[in-house]
Amino acid sequence: MKTVPQRLTEFREAMKKAGCDIFIMPSSDAHASEYAPAHDTAWEYFSGFSCENSNLLVTLTEAALWVDGRFFGAADKALKDTGVQSMHMGVKGVPAVNEWIENKLKEGMVLGYNAETMPLTQMRGLKEICDRKGAELRDLPLVDQAWTEDRAPLPATPAWILGNEFAGKGADEKLSIFRNKLKEADCDSAVITSLDSVAWLYNLRAADVDNTPYALAFSYVDMESAVLFMDYSRLSSEGAETLKNAGVTIMGYKDMPEFLAKNEKALKVLVDPHCLNASLNNALRANSKFTVVEGSDPIALLKAVKNETELSCTRKAHIYDGAAMVRFQIELEKRLSEGEKLRETDIDTILHKYRSANPGFIVESFPTIAAYGENAANMHYAPKAGADAELKNEGYLLVDSGATYYEGTTDITRTYALGALTHEEKLGYTRVLRCHIDVAMAVWKEGATGGELDMMARQPMWRHMLDYRCGTGHGVSHVGAVHEGPQSLRPHNGIVFVPGMIITDEPGIYEEGHMGIRIENELECLEAGESEYGKFLRFQPITYVPIDMSCVLVDELTKEEKEWINGYHAAVLEKLSPLLSKEEIQWLTVKCAAV
Amino acid sequence: MKTVPQRLTEFREAMKKAGCDIFIMPSSDAHASEYAPAHDTAWEYFSGFSCENSNLLVTLTEAALWVDGRFFGAADKALKDTGVQSMHMGVKGVPAVNEWIENKLKEGMVLGYNAETMPLTQMRGLKEICDRKGAELRDLPLVDQAWTEDRAPLPATPAWILGNEFAGKGADEKLSIFRNKLKEADCDSAVITSLDSVAWLYNLRAADVDNTPYALAFSYVDMESAVLFMDYSRLSSEGAETLKNAGVTIMGYKDMPEFLAKNEKALKVLVDPHCLNASLNNALRANSKFTVVEGSDPIALLKAVKNETELSCTRKAHIYDGAAMVRFQIELEKRLSEGEKLRETDIDTILHKYRSANPGFIVESFPTIAAYGENAANMHYAPKAGADAELKNEGYLLVDSGATYYEGTTDITRTYALGALTHEEKLGYTRVLRCHIDVAMAVWKEGATGGELDMMARQPMWRHMLDYRCGTGHGVSHVGAVHEGPQSLRPHNGIVFVPGMIITDEPGIYEEGHMGIRIENELECLEAGESEYGKFLRFQPITYVPIDMSCVLVDELTKEEKEWINGYHAAVLEKLSPLLSKEEIQWLTVKCAAV
Repeated sequence: MKTVPQRLTEFREAMKKAGCDIFIMPSSDAHASEYAPAHDTAWEYFSGFSCENSNLLVTLTEAALWVDGRFFGAADKALKDTGVQSMHMGVKGVPAVNEWIENKLKEGMVLGYNAETMPLTQMRGLKEICDRKGAELRDLPLVDQAWTEDRAPLPATPAWILGNEFAGKGADEKLSIFRNKLKEADCDSAVITSLDSVAWLYNLRAADVDNTPYALAFSYVDMESAVLFMDYSRLSSEGAETLKNAGVTIMGYKDMPEFLAKNEKALKVLVDPHCLNASLNNALRANSKFTVVEGSDPIALLKAVKNETELSCTRKAHIYDGAAMVRFQIELEKRLSEGEKLRETDIDTILHKYRSANPGFIVESFPTIAAYGENAANMHYAPKAGADAELKNEGYLLVDSGATYYEGTTDITRTYALGALTHEEKLGYTRVLRCHIDVAMAVWKEGATGGELDMMARQPMWRHMLDYRCGTGHGVSHVGAVHEGPQSLRPHNGIVFVPGMIITDEPGIYEEGHMGIRIENELECLEAGESEYGKFLRFQPITYVPIDMSCVLVDELTKEEKEWINGYHAAVLEKLSPLLSKEEIQWLTVKCAAV
Repeated sequence: MKTVPQRLTEFREAMKKAGCDIFIMPSSDAHASEYAPAHDTAWEYFSGFSCENSNLLVTLTEAALWVDGRFFGAADKALKDTGVQSMHMGVKGVPAVNEWIENKLKEGMVLGYNAETMPLTQMRGLKEICDRKGAELRDLPLVDQAWTEDRAPLPATPAWILGNEFAGKGADEKLSIFRNKLKEADCDSAVITSLDSVAWLYNLRAADVDNTPYALAFSYVDMESAVLFMDYSRLSSEGAETLKNAGVTIMGYKDMPEFLAKNEKALKVLVDPHCLNASLNNALRANSKFTVVEGSDPIALLKAVKNETELSCTRKAHIYDGAAMVRFQIELEKRLSEGEKLRETDIDTILHKYRSANPGFIVESFPTIAAYGENAANMHYAPKAGADAELKNEGYLLVDSGATYYEGTTDITRTYALGALTHEEKLGYTRVLRCHIDVAMAVWKEGATGGELDMMARQPMWRHMLDYRCGTGHGVSHVGAVHEGPQSLRPHNGIVFVPGMIITDEPGIYEEGHMGIRIENELECLEAGESEYGKFLRFQPITYVPIDMSCVLVDELTKEEKEWINGYHAAVLEKLSPLLSKEEIQWLTVKCAAV
């Protein structure tokens, strides 16, 4: 295997031949995905460091990788002596990617990029810099030329169609809803590039992306036709039949540019510049028959509001998942109390055993975060076999995990006390729980946004000038990606909550070098009722797993918070008992006792 | 005195002569003021009904007055048999003003208006309708022609300059700050029309508007000159000297159009289209040397953030005011307990006696709202002598009042129990108090908006599907208008709170036919401190008056809410005692006892 300096030397040879002075590799793919398939991880191959939310910049003499707070330490270590600088995003004095480019770029220089994996909005930012500096932005196939070693092919796992008994609506009905949205936006066609949107529109699933059951595919839709761009041979015959009956044509994954070039109708085509890659944008603009309209992908909001079938299936998935979590906790407590030495990576093994026992199980919805003690201060900690911590009989163990079943996708965090706790540890847990409950029992007049609800969530922290450096919660896809927009509980999020949305409620405390505490349920948004003052909405938990009350300073809770926790635990016992043995019910009854 | 039909007949004569088909009279003046001086209340003269936030429309055969919820009943009664329809704003099926105009307007017709009292933004809405319908929008002096009887002249009360010991900064310093804001907005001049802004910029005060110590005046500022348009003779010689020393030129109130016409420099002039009247807009656009830039008046935000002198003076004003409120309550309790028959209008008399005893007293900051029993369900109730309710020994009396002193302007509401209360009445009071406290003790990371804080305030109401149909609070000017923007605690207000802003905290419950409860303090926004998570802000009450705890179901309060109220009452006792007699302190000590 080549070293990073060797890889960079070869890349710079390609740059010189092409007359390129600076080249940018964003952590994206052709679909602006949060997690790119291995084939598209050029920033990782050429820097030797794996991370998300990044950009690698290469000049003929320098290289620099931008990493966010989660990766500062690990990146500094891994990039040492590779010739790649570790750039700490958001830190004072460290230039942002575009500032850095602007400093390096001189008149007449060429800034290279790969249009196929570059989101249109990012490309435009680069173009502005080049225009200001009298430089040229040029689409160059340098990654393909220089990355010949060990490169994974584009994934092409078997694809299938999620049945209407799980999805509630077939592709025919969803196409009709989507076409109405296009008309509302005064458009008559659309290019759809986000994998989430394609998955929703056609109920298409596969295993192209780790932990996310999606297929790499694009789509084009107008008032008469719907085209899915994806290798036909990947589809089950049943799946192919279902799509054919819904009026969907299938063409090759790479065929969209040629297809767009052939269009002869005058069409107003809707694209989302945050998801559209620069290459497809060029293809669209090259055909003057298209009038390109830029806007938000309407599927994002359609998808975020679950239909009745999706909701009832998801509720079922959470009950399976809750039973698995209960069995996990019983086994964990038993093995630890018997003096067994367990490590962080054992947690995922135990969880997988119980979750995968369910016939509806597809895959974990993300790599299990099992973080003991100070490791939990890193919100996105991933234990690695051999380098993971041993669990001791003190402090907290944070377990953030979930699964995708045919019925739905789950995401849950519990923090367990493994021994006696200090007052300060209990106070932290209690504050996190108060934030959690305050969101869960919120009632609001319709029209409130995620940003407004987030503000309320943080009061029990903010009163003590504490905070968590992330949103309070995110949407969750139905049998799909564990992160879903556009709704979120996050400062200044402007999306209005409506019944049928699902959101996680996961405040936390993260103390570097000491501990991390997070309590996470998923909540469903529903109608609370109507009064002379208008319509009111509320949340209802759909996660059913006991919350460890032995860590709570109960006197710090308000009367309403105590009522909420007692009501919640009564529901946990009621929902899970039908799936549990007599002994398990006994155990659960103790955990769900009223305070 | 002419009847309304006579007035309308004469107005229609003027319309016919001018070839006008429809005429609109908004409740505005040349400064887009919330309360217009009597001279400009044409909508009231021609309809015979007094109200704010209104428009009167007159055609050759019809007339219609738009009123908001506060005035539905009174308007219906007053307008009966006058030939003026009472239009209930916001009620389903009742067309909005512009819809009504659009329905009536036919091709070739003339829609008349008075440019001098028409805000530019409203004029533009009318222009769009006329353009769509092929009609003409025409500035016509019909109000001046037809309103000859009993019309008040434009007010011209003695004007004076608020000293730096109260204002903190003189006109010279404020002009320099303002000019920097103009540069930031890439402008080099401004036309200032809002009375609040003119008052702030020059520390100019008078008594032109009821309860608001402002002078009718405009201003023009560029990088070299500052012109105040206001009758020179109104100014004290001392005031004239102060302004002269600050480099301010004074010209006549009506001289601005001629002044603008004479400008020969190429200037980018900033105007706020919500405050600029259509006539001044015409004058600006007529001189091609001006490039008009539309934006928010920067003074609004400058003025909303009080300086140290303003803050310390205001805190002092609130202590005077609190002592007056205590004396008022002692007298009220005594006279009622002695069996005296008191009426709602007596409340203002008693309050005035105690407030005006202070040498710094200028005027009540708004007409006292003293509302007994069901009258308090109307948030803006104004008792009228002869038609006011008698106070009985049961239910609630709501008193919302305030004053402007040389040190600052106050606004406070207390709701008093006049006898035994039902459980429901106590529950209502308790919920209002919880909303009040939850705002008052909020802590937030800098960046939160009024809309976000408002959302949090309402939780104790919303959980029971109750609400109040108004904002939770508004800004208050320094020695000025009791309502001040742009900050407010109101759904979706997007202004970010910063230290130095003052806001009222006045949640309420209003039950038609039964009761109204409101508890209002003013809060100052200040820094709470800084932690590793960032800078935090909080509120601190600057109103010091006991809250009647005999109305509270104390068990419904959280631990933190109880701590807040005990801390607040301790501060009330400490702040007011130096101004009170021994007996008054004894009385206050009982009212401020910890719960």
